[in-house]
Amino acid sequence: MKVTKSDRKSRGMDLDAITELLNKAPVGRVATVSPDSTPYIVPVNFAFDGDRIYFHCALEGMKLDCIRANPKVGFEADELLEVYASADRPCFCGSYYRSVIARGKAAIVTDREKKLQALWLLVEKYAGKCYGEMPADIVERTCVVEIVIDEISGKTHLPDKN
Amino acid sequence: MKVTKSDRKSRGMDLDAITELLNKAPVGRVATVSPDSTPYIVPVNFAFDGDRIYFHCALEGMKLDCIRANPKVGFEADELLEVYASADRPCFCGSYYRSVIARGKAAIVTDREKKLQALWLLVEKYAGKCYGEMPADIVERTCVVEIVIDEISGKTHLPDKN
Repeated sequence: MKVTKSDRKSRGMDLDAITELLNKAPVGRVATVSPDSTPYIVPVNFAFDGDRIYFHCALEGMKLDCIRANPKVGFEADELLEVYASADRPCFCGSYYRSVIARGKAAIVTDREKKLQALWLLVEKYAGKCYGEMPADIVERTCVVEIVIDEISGKTHLPDKN
Repeated sequence: MKVTKSDRKSRGMDLDAITELLNKAPVGRVATVSPDSTPYIVPVNFAFDGDRIYFHCALEGMKLDCIRANPKVGFEADELLEVYASADRPCFCGSYYRSVIARGKAAIVTDREKKLQALWLLVEKYAGKCYGEMPADIVERTCVVEIVIDEISGKTHLPDKN
């Protein structure tokens, strides 16, 4: 996994800041390429284990069809902090945000042990520490996809501190 | 522009609901395909005129390079309403949300009048009604991209009302 700097260096994030955003962001977006070369984006709930991104979905669907045909995917998560705007200077509006983008390869997790680990990671992210057993029938009818990240980068635009 | 229904009919949105979400959502995501067939997603501020999506960016950059090589793009916007989770039933967590996805073709707006109209649409979305003149130098060094939508669909998952 290569952590690249944003093209605007002053706005780049290091891996700690990237990890913090990914652990906090409830929604990420996965883009696949459909067979006619059109990107297809969907929002997902996801978890990051410091190295790979996991999300779950139904056992069949367009994003799985796309991944089977071309495993290359893009991923994005962001946090909007504030939209600022000037009422009398039309071009002086914008937003403060943090965002992370990544590219990598997606694969359906078929190993049951690994699938359970990924589901626990998701459950712990969204529900906090959690007890009980993962119901076997739900595990069976849920698909877990892992994204092996080739490149990841983060960008921030925050208010000046002074 | 074709409004398609989500694959899960009960969760589909009509064009009015799609428009409402697009007018409200401060951030959208645009996915392009890089020359090596990897999707590239970036968050954008955008405006929807009921027919096309407009966003602005720097005059040069990777997303413009991708669009020039392949104008097919994907677009996504979402609104997360609530994450729900059960502490003792590990698989019973999820989220209530609305989301819109679209596919279409992107083009750089070169006509100055059309570019100004798109910039005003953006300014009005983010700053509300706004007075003054759009500074000519800023218009010159801003690129405006329009997405001509081929297909758009929306999906909601909301709490049961009863």
